Amino acid sequence: MDISKIMQFLIPKDKKFFPLFEQAADNLVKTAVLLNKMLLIQDAEQRDVVISEIKEHEKIGDDITHNIFEELNKTFITPFDREDIHELTSSLDDVLDYINSSCQRIRLYKPKEISPEFVDMAELITQACREIKTAISELSNLKNPKKINNACIRINDIENQADEVYYLAISSYFQEEKNAIELIKKKEIIQTLEKATDMAEDVADVLKTILVKSA
Amino acid sequence: MDISKIMQFLIPKDKKFFPLFEQAADNLVKTAVLLNKMLLIQDAEQRDVVISEIKEHEKIGDDITHNIFEELNKTFITPFDREDIHELTSSLDDVLDYINSSCQRIRLYKPKEISPEFVDMAELITQACREIKTAISELSNLKNPKKINNACIRINDIENQADEVYYLAISSYFQEEKNAIELIKKKEIIQTLEKATDMAEDVADVLKTILVKSA
Amino acid sequence: MDISKIMQFLIPKDKKFFPLFEQAADNLVKTAVLLNKMLLIQDAEQRDVVISEIKEHEKIGDDITHNIFEELNKTFITPFDREDIHELTSSLDDVLDYINSSCQRIRLYKPKEISPEFVDMAELITQACREIKTAISELSNLKNPKKINNACIRINDIENQADEVYYLAISSYFQEEKNAIELIKKKEIIQTLEKATDMAEDVADVLKTILVKSA
Repeated sequence: MDISKIMQFLIPKDKKFFPLFEQAADNLVKTAVLLNKMLLIQDAEQRDVVISEIKEHEKIGDDITHNIFEELNKTFITPFDREDIHELTSSLDDVLDYINSSCQRIRLYKPKEISPEFVDMAELITQACREIKTAISELSNLKNPKKINNACIRINDIENQADEVYYLAISSYFQEEKNAIELIKKKEIIQTLEKATDMAEDVADVLKTILVKSA
Repeated sequence: MDISKIMQFLIPKDKKFFPLFEQAADNLVKTAVLLNKMLLIQDAEQRDVVISEIKEHEKIGDDITHNIFEELNKTFITPFDREDIHELTSSLDDVLDYINSSCQRIRLYKPKEISPEFVDMAELITQACREIKTAISELSNLKNPKKINNACIRINDIENQADEVYYLAISSYFQEEKNAIELIKKKEIIQTLEKATDMAEDVADVLKTILVKSA
Repeated sequence: MDISKIMQFLIPKDKKFFPLFEQAADNLVKTAVLLNKMLLIQDAEQRDVVISEIKEHEKIGDDITHNIFEELNKTFITPFDREDIHELTSSLDDVLDYINSSCQRIRLYKPKEISPEFVDMAELITQACREIKTAISELSNLKNPKKINNACIRINDIENQADEVYYLAISSYFQEEKNAIELIKKKEIIQTLEKATDMAEDVADVLKTILVKSA
């Protein structure tokens, strides 16, 4: 055990990972912005154009994930624990996947209306993605652990707000939507959007683990 | 490799984890008892009072989980493999989360009736949580591995019974419930309850792994 | 660190795992073939007979999984990384679980018709399982890494086709099925079938990881 820990002090840490994490965070913010844009479009066909763009960003994210995993398999000394790199990468990809899935559901289900709770949730997702980007950009030097920590606290706070939006949405759908098929559509779309904020919280959790271990 | 294994014999094992696991198991049993209590209440508003209590217990569980993970990040020599501590903690938390989620669904969906299968499933969940508590209380000394093993066998058996209850419930809902929205409500509530017993089985699986490794 | 890596060259690798993986892959192909057979049966009662057979195969798979995990806990030097053996075993089991779950849903939900998309999806699942079997049979000697790699590429391709089938199915159900309860049935059955191809992709991912590490 932990010859590796000693070696981590002796051998220069591999810096290839940080630009890849930043690419992932950057791609995430861009996708969240497109999500907001899409939800404000009235016309379903025009919405589908933006949904295709979001799909493209999901593929870019897959490539970044793939590059990080390949790097991880090749690299002997990693800047922090391999399992944390793996977890961080997967959770970043999960946020992106849920944003894309929500959009694909909108495209496939063709709900009669864009529920206002979708817009509220997309706004929270975007805030969470921006906080992720802030935290990730501090990760390479760790000179400002407090900045990462504060971003994580805000992500947790955003996730709590998302829970509230979700609960109110579900409650109102079940109270007011009398068309069962429209209810299913709305319910599943808001669930998928809310999942994206859960995944953002997973990103915050692994960032906090990295901070604790490097303290 | 496994200088760590040798060291585990030389260095006193860290005992801080066991009281935390016991807290988690204890909190789980209390929450399961509240679940049963809640399902027997006829009045929806009075039910919501108990559901709020259950939510409080879920927060207590989150704090315990957080404490264990923090301990894990600080501790050099753990009483059993780090990955198993992680897995045990997460699976205990998952049981709690699914109990709470079921309750939140009841609160949000306001189903017209509490289906008798919910009560049957809650009874099985409580039995599983009691078995978990029994097993966990034996974990610190491992003098009675057979006791842990027997608890795990009973949890597996309970999970099989839960599967049966679940299958019969779903089958009867689809046969008898003609209101699609009420069907969705019942189906998702029983699914979430059943998930809690799946997670109890995950707890049993990791306990068995710990037993095998320490044999 | 990585005294283990050195030892892996010195000590004969444990060959017990490969026959177990082959059993798992073989059981998977047989189950997928039964799935196809079942979906072509018009009579619901006769379908249920084949669904019971599929359930038996799922239990066989559980036993194989259990044997691999037990072997893993007993074995000091594994033929490749423990975590990859774990991941491969779990993902093989996940494919089987989702095939079985789809069938159980058909049994419980009693959909008025077997949607043609179920049949298309079952065909893709079977192709993916055959590719898994091909890849697994090459794993013990690794003389033909290209053969494993090609199987993985084909699994990815099959998963993309499955996505297409899924999207078209969901879209047509929401456009054409006016009975909300029948819509729920079809939607959940196709979702569970599609999940089986996702899990096949997870198998391919871990196989690729094993290849990269052993290169």
